[in-house]
Amino acid sequence: MTRQRHTGHGVRGLVHKRRPAAGSPPGTLALPAKPGGTFIRVMRYDPAGAEEFDARSDDLASIIQPGKVAWIDVQGLGDESLLRRLAGVFSIHPLALADIVNIGQRPKSEDYDGRLFVVVRMVRMPAPDTPDWEQVSLWAGPGFVVTFQEKPGDCLDPLRGRIRTDGSRIRSSDAGYLATMVVDAIVDAYFPALESFGEHLDTIERRLIERPDADLLTTIFHTKRELMGFRRAIWPQRETLTRLLRDGHPLITPATTPYLRDVYDHAVHLADVTETYRELAQSYIDVYLSSVAHRTNETMRVLTVLATIFIPLTFVAGVFGMNFDTSHPLNMPELGWRFGYLAFWVFCVVLAGSMLYVARRAGWIGGGKKNP
Amino acid sequence: MTRQRHTGHGVRGLVHKRRPAAGSPPGTLALPAKPGGTFIRVMRYDPAGAEEFDARSDDLASIIQPGKVAWIDVQGLGDESLLRRLAGVFSIHPLALADIVNIGQRPKSEDYDGRLFVVVRMVRMPAPDTPDWEQVSLWAGPGFVVTFQEKPGDCLDPLRGRIRTDGSRIRSSDAGYLATMVVDAIVDAYFPALESFGEHLDTIERRLIERPDADLLTTIFHTKRELMGFRRAIWPQRETLTRLLRDGHPLITPATTPYLRDVYDHAVHLADVTETYRELAQSYIDVYLSSVAHRTNETMRVLTVLATIFIPLTFVAGVFGMNFDTSHPLNMPELGWRFGYLAFWVFCVVLAGSMLYVARRAGWIGGGKKNP
Amino acid sequence: MTRQRHTGHGVRGLVHKRRPAAGSPPGTLALPAKPGGTFIRVMRYDPAGAEEFDARSDDLASIIQPGKVAWIDVQGLGDESLLRRLAGVFSIHPLALADIVNIGQRPKSEDYDGRLFVVVRMVRMPAPDTPDWEQVSLWAGPGFVVTFQEKPGDCLDPLRGRIRTDGSRIRSSDAGYLATMVVDAIVDAYFPALESFGEHLDTIERRLIERPDADLLTTIFHTKRELMGFRRAIWPQRETLTRLLRDGHPLITPATTPYLRDVYDHAVHLADVTETYRELAQSYIDVYLSSVAHRTNETMRVLTVLATIFIPLTFVAGVFGMNFDTSHPLNMPELGWRFGYLAFWVFCVVLAGSMLYVARRAGWIGGGKKNP
Amino acid sequence: MTRQRHTGHGVRGLVHKRRPAAGSPPGTLALPAKPGGTFIRVMRYDPAGAEEFDARSDDLASIIQPGKVAWIDVQGLGDESLLRRLAGVFSIHPLALADIVNIGQRPKSEDYDGRLFVVVRMVRMPAPDTPDWEQVSLWAGPGFVVTFQEKPGDCLDPLRGRIRTDGSRIRSSDAGYLATMVVDAIVDAYFPALESFGEHLDTIERRLIERPDADLLTTIFHTKRELMGFRRAIWPQRETLTRLLRDGHPLITPATTPYLRDVYDHAVHLADVTETYRELAQSYIDVYLSSVAHRTNETMRVLTVLATIFIPLTFVAGVFGMNFDTSHPLNMPELGWRFGYLAFWVFCVVLAGSMLYVARRAGWIGGGKKNP
Amino acid sequence: MTRQRHTGHGVRGLVHKRRPAAGSPPGTLALPAKPGGTFIRVMRYDPAGAEEFDARSDDLASIIQPGKVAWIDVQGLGDESLLRRLAGVFSIHPLALADIVNIGQRPKSEDYDGRLFVVVRMVRMPAPDTPDWEQVSLWAGPGFVVTFQEKPGDCLDPLRGRIRTDGSRIRSSDAGYLATMVVDAIVDAYFPALESFGEHLDTIERRLIERPDADLLTTIFHTKRELMGFRRAIWPQRETLTRLLRDGHPLITPATTPYLRDVYDHAVHLADVTETYRELAQSYIDVYLSSVAHRTNETMRVLTVLATIFIPLTFVAGVFGMNFDTSHPLNMPELGWRFGYLAFWVFCVVLAGSMLYVARRAGWIGGGKKNP
Repeated sequence: MTRQRHTGHGVRGLVHKRRPAAGSPPGTLALPAKPGGTFIRVMRYDPAGAEEFDARSDDLASIIQPGKVAWIDVQGLGDESLLRRLAGVFSIHPLALADIVNIGQRPKSEDYDGRLFVVVRMVRMPAPDTPDWEQVSLWAGPGFVVTFQEKPGDCLDPLRGRIRTDGSRIRSSDAGYLATMVVDAIVDAYFPALESFGEHLDTIERRLIERPDADLLTTIFHTKRELMGFRRAIWPQRETLTRLLRDGHPLITPATTPYLRDVYDHAVHLADVTETYRELAQSYIDVYLSSVAHRTNETMRVLTVLATIFIPLTFVAGVFGMNFDTSHPLNMPELGWRFGYLAFWVFCVVLAGSMLYVARRAGWIGGGKKNP
Repeated sequence: MTRQRHTGHGVRGLVHKRRPAAGSPPGTLALPAKPGGTFIRVMRYDPAGAEEFDARSDDLASIIQPGKVAWIDVQGLGDESLLRRLAGVFSIHPLALADIVNIGQRPKSEDYDGRLFVVVRMVRMPAPDTPDWEQVSLWAGPGFVVTFQEKPGDCLDPLRGRIRTDGSRIRSSDAGYLATMVVDAIVDAYFPALESFGEHLDTIERRLIERPDADLLTTIFHTKRELMGFRRAIWPQRETLTRLLRDGHPLITPATTPYLRDVYDHAVHLADVTETYRELAQSYIDVYLSSVAHRTNETMRVLTVLATIFIPLTFVAGVFGMNFDTSHPLNMPELGWRFGYLAFWVFCVVLAGSMLYVARRAGWIGGGKKNP
Repeated sequence: MTRQRHTGHGVRGLVHKRRPAAGSPPGTLALPAKPGGTFIRVMRYDPAGAEEFDARSDDLASIIQPGKVAWIDVQGLGDESLLRRLAGVFSIHPLALADIVNIGQRPKSEDYDGRLFVVVRMVRMPAPDTPDWEQVSLWAGPGFVVTFQEKPGDCLDPLRGRIRTDGSRIRSSDAGYLATMVVDAIVDAYFPALESFGEHLDTIERRLIERPDADLLTTIFHTKRELMGFRRAIWPQRETLTRLLRDGHPLITPATTPYLRDVYDHAVHLADVTETYRELAQSYIDVYLSSVAHRTNETMRVLTVLATIFIPLTFVAGVFGMNFDTSHPLNMPELGWRFGYLAFWVFCVVLAGSMLYVARRAGWIGGGKKNP
Repeated sequence: MTRQRHTGHGVRGLVHKRRPAAGSPPGTLALPAKPGGTFIRVMRYDPAGAEEFDARSDDLASIIQPGKVAWIDVQGLGDESLLRRLAGVFSIHPLALADIVNIGQRPKSEDYDGRLFVVVRMVRMPAPDTPDWEQVSLWAGPGFVVTFQEKPGDCLDPLRGRIRTDGSRIRSSDAGYLATMVVDAIVDAYFPALESFGEHLDTIERRLIERPDADLLTTIFHTKRELMGFRRAIWPQRETLTRLLRDGHPLITPATTPYLRDVYDHAVHLADVTETYRELAQSYIDVYLSSVAHRTNETMRVLTVLATIFIPLTFVAGVFGMNFDTSHPLNMPELGWRFGYLAFWVFCVVLAGSMLYVARRAGWIGGGKKNP
Repeated sequence: MTRQRHTGHGVRGLVHKRRPAAGSPPGTLALPAKPGGTFIRVMRYDPAGAEEFDARSDDLASIIQPGKVAWIDVQGLGDESLLRRLAGVFSIHPLALADIVNIGQRPKSEDYDGRLFVVVRMVRMPAPDTPDWEQVSLWAGPGFVVTFQEKPGDCLDPLRGRIRTDGSRIRSSDAGYLATMVVDAIVDAYFPALESFGEHLDTIERRLIERPDADLLTTIFHTKRELMGFRRAIWPQRETLTRLLRDGHPLITPATTPYLRDVYDHAVHLADVTETYRELAQSYIDVYLSSVAHRTNETMRVLTVLATIFIPLTFVAGVFGMNFDTSHPLNMPELGWRFGYLAFWVFCVVLAGSMLYVARRAGWIGGGKKNP
């Protein structure tokens, strides 16, 4: 049971949100308790080539170059002044900046004067059944995409690899395409996570049929809770993509739209799978309950068979153990019979047999394995 | 169990509404049974400065000054004549006034000829798990916001502090922004309340796994009921904000809209969390039931193991306690055997052992801890 | 249990509808089995004054007077010829007349060539938990409102009082306002009815925690069923008002609209409360089941503790009651020991104690009150 | 239990559909296995008079006469050539013809070039709780309505009677009105069927409270399944009518629309009632489960009371039946006491009394009837 | 129980999708692990005739001929270069090609510049209850339809037969009609699959009433899971067809639309049936639980009847087996009575009888069959 206790992050993990103190003006930043630094890594590319460099606070204004797409990847949200400078250079709205820093936001996309602001949730599975969630925020405009995440390490390395590859489609595409690809990579990372849940559910199902013990109940319940977390991440992302496709955005050109629709298809698929898994987990609880009830019934029947046979017999044995004065001829004459003891055993066998027969006929008890 | 009995305010607390007698004309005010006074506190500010003063009945008309924003904060709804005068000065519609005084209204927003009327519910947690609800009504027009609440004490003090601060954004904004900030402060106050529920659910979950007793069932049920109260407060607020954003209102300028959208995002987030918590609380009842059924099964199995071993043995002991006349050679010859008693014990051990073996093989009983 | 049997009107009460024989042409009237008379009471008013009189069949055409509003209140639906005359005078469509007479219709509102036809359900609580339903139909046109109900007695007396009062708002308003006020009075009468249900649920909840017996289950179930009846009455009324507000009607002037919106708000509030109550009643069944399961478990544990202690002891006592021939030195030598009986008791206490200890350690049984 | 086995037509009855072999071209007719004949009965009427006659294959073209409405009632779907001729004369689209013959279609309405095609389901209750379903298809154009059903016997006789009646509304109306009346008659025939279900549910409810046995569970379950069949028939009909009202059809004139709306109201009412009944049937299963759990608990308590009293007593009696050698003064001296036997009984009464007292105080057991 | 273990393909079977490595650019093909070849079979027809031939890589460009419809049937997705050539010839969008190859997509339809792209799922039932799923993708343009499937064997042979038949409707129709017929054949193949599920549910239901054992629970659960798979296949297909009908597509001419609507009707019907079956399977779990609870109760009652009769009797027998010194006149005088033993039996019968009577009166126990 110890293992399950550490699965997931408890109820609060489901709804974790970093908020400034209640009553703060909107746009207040709730910086992390242990502020680390903020590192800015830039990839800038055009069809001809791609360059990568770390940006410092005073370089920011010069990052954007005409004809090139710049991906400004911000890791760590601890350095308020740097973040504010960044917000200045890329005209990030104060409320968007607050959503970036105050992690735990609901996934959403917004249009701030032609800038595209998207909040998504990235999932990683460092260990089985323990999804690790991280908010990724994306602020895009013509020629640049700024992504923000709190912790280093993400699922975007293959995307970086594609940017480095000469002749790849991304190298000849614009910032809207880059933004779509970032969201695509994050959404696609849900598939292996959900697949590992699928394997976990398979294990649960096997145990459910073979040995439904109390640990299993705990496991099912924890799995269901983690799936609630997945749903809370995936559904808003699906909504967000629906709205983005329906309303359009200047950055999403007709050439990019099929790719965004592809991401949307994946999100719908993920939402489907999550619902199916949740429904399965709920079924498991029902089946567990039915299965325990069935086992109790079986146990009861064993007890009842035993009682049906032996309780009357024990009474009879008790009767012949009574100490009535056998000098009176009517008092327990059986004790003096020549074949009394034999008759007692015959009587016992007949009694037990007929009790069993009656019980079986009446359907009260079955015969162990064959007819449970 | 005593503690839970006092949690919350019972079923009626969920739907409390102060109503005039049935059949009263619409707009009838249902004044509180113990009318206290009505106190009016005014904050009036422009970018240059802010002043605060108590308003009396005859000052009302002079509160609004051009170029300034006045926040008229009405506490206590007991003084009908003062409320009616106020309604006159700020042209509050009689039906709106009735909604203000007859507390327990469903959250809503309405447009009365360019005036914005909003009803929201404020939550405070004076003690853990005992949310305390209060209706806050807001009547806003160009240059003024009137807020009404029944009891003194609210979550708006940080907002008041921001008004007192020179150079704050609110000082240079209009009445629509002030109204948005009031609603924002009230909505944000749900977060700590829900977080304390999250901690409470964590505690429940820990107890659920370790020791599911009857008190826990009561606790889960009460928590679920309080969460139903949260939902009844949050969902209409979410709807209200959706409608306000969609239909717009003259007081909500384009500059204020992102802030209103921010409030809306928070309301959506709160609605999500509440749903998740409710679903969890419902799961807890399922898990509790399964868990109790499992324990009953375990208890039954212990009883059955005992019965499987000892009921036949007791019968055998009873047999050898019978008083058949042993002078007949066929009557209980075992009693006269030299090693009869030893044989009895050997037989008992063999019988008990084989009963256990059969029971285990047939899967009727398991081995306590290892294979429950 | 007798009390609950009489609560409500059974399943058929939920869906009671008086229908003509199947296959009748549309517009066929299904008159009541015991036709009583049909009484027509008229209130006619303008701002200057109000008059009340009983109308007879031949007065009908003269009831409407220009500049005045006439409320024709028809009680009893038994006199077909009078109803048909009335229909002729006020041009009531045959299908509307059928809906008026064939009570049990779903609440609805329709527009027949500028006439407003509304069907609502009126509730009264003659005794606690036994709502009494009655259909009220309303046919309104310029200058008149005709209301129909089957039984005398309604919740409209306060409204009549307001018409009699000089200077009341209703006296200076038109027929659309009167129609709105009739619906308002009927909708408002749901509040005390639902409140009495709230009190009833509170009682159920207290009993649920203290003493969940079988009567309680019946009570919960009946309450749930009555709430299903409330929902079936309230939801269509809510829909009806939504549609009326959205589509408008010539009789509902802009001055009347806020009052209709007020009625709508009340209907939404009622629908909310009913949903909450139904969800509570459903929870009660879950909690009842969990609670009974818990009690069964407790009872089982008591039995198991007793069995754990006494079944082995009884066996031991049985052993020493056996009649083996003690002349053989190996047969039951304990019986001849000097301290055999003392040793027996010591053994019993040790055995019982260690059984209890093992059972407790293994978590099979708890210690009664302290650790249930 | 035998009775329930024959209730309804099993799972397949719910979704019965006659289909041609998979892969057949659309429009393939799946004729009944035992083809009977196809009989065509015509009613042709105008305000002046109505005539009825059987139509043969070669009469078909002459049935329609200008200024008259012809109702061609086709019974039996076994004569393919006649059906195809009919399709030719009335220009029935091949797909519509396939829907007519391949019974078990989902209710729907379609517009084929100004022709109205409607599929509905007719219900009859030949015996209580055993609804008998039949597809009725309707193909209408100006001046004619063709109805198709597989088996003779329907609920349309009252409608035929109205056509025969001089001066009835139907005689002076057009084919669209006739089509509406056919659907009206079929929809109205659901009311008595549902009412008989209501009575059945009332019976179930009474038994549920008085004697919840296993047969009852089977009955509830079968009733729920039959109600699923009702829902599957009624909901699509409701949708069909909604769409027909919303989109309109050339055959449905403004004069006919109120009558169609009336049919729609009935369908909505039926859908409501069916939902309510289904919810009730689901509740019954919950209540049954709770009720059985409660009874098990009661039975357990009786057993526990008995065990609480007698298990210790039996042990004590067993102790005094032991054969320790009483010549040693410490061995069972009680047996030699003058009042030993009396003391034994006193001890038994005191022990049983105090066991009961403790058990009752601790709330383990109640007192039978009074405090169950 | 072994049989059930092999039913279906486990949890992962529900959501199987072949994906390229996470982070791959969109449009990456995830080729099967064991690549087989790719075979292309072409049917080309016009009203005059139909020809069939295998196409090789270099023939592709010449397949389309004006005035003819070509059905290019691609089986096996292992030959990447051939697939890419095909995509080139028929201008298949890279994302569509990826959806074709990366099987396990959600059913959908898309419009790529006048080309129709449809993904559906084909079901086959090689053995009862073990549906075998396969993705079929369809790319259609003027004059051609390309279908893709991974494994050989499908449900399209009857369609091929119709193409070979001179004078069949399909021979004189266009590519849009062919595409509709392909989808029609695939959708129609669900009917026999669902029907075999219906029979399976009937079997389950019969066993549920007669003998609810643990295997049955497993069977119900597996059936429910397979039905979840059906739903996941059918619902998106229904949505896809709704959208295609609503938005239209250049390939779907007005003459083809009724046929597409027919396919849509079938999909709606299938969705209905699947929902009904799922609801039934869920009901079965409830009924199973209730039924097991009822059986446990019955078993408990048998035990309680036995205990009620014999536990007191055994105590009495134990009493008379005590060894009190009968030389004291007060010690067990009954043992010395002349009719003591007879009196004992009379007492036993009376005691057992009155215990039974009390138990029956109090409703604790019933009488086996008659009053269970």
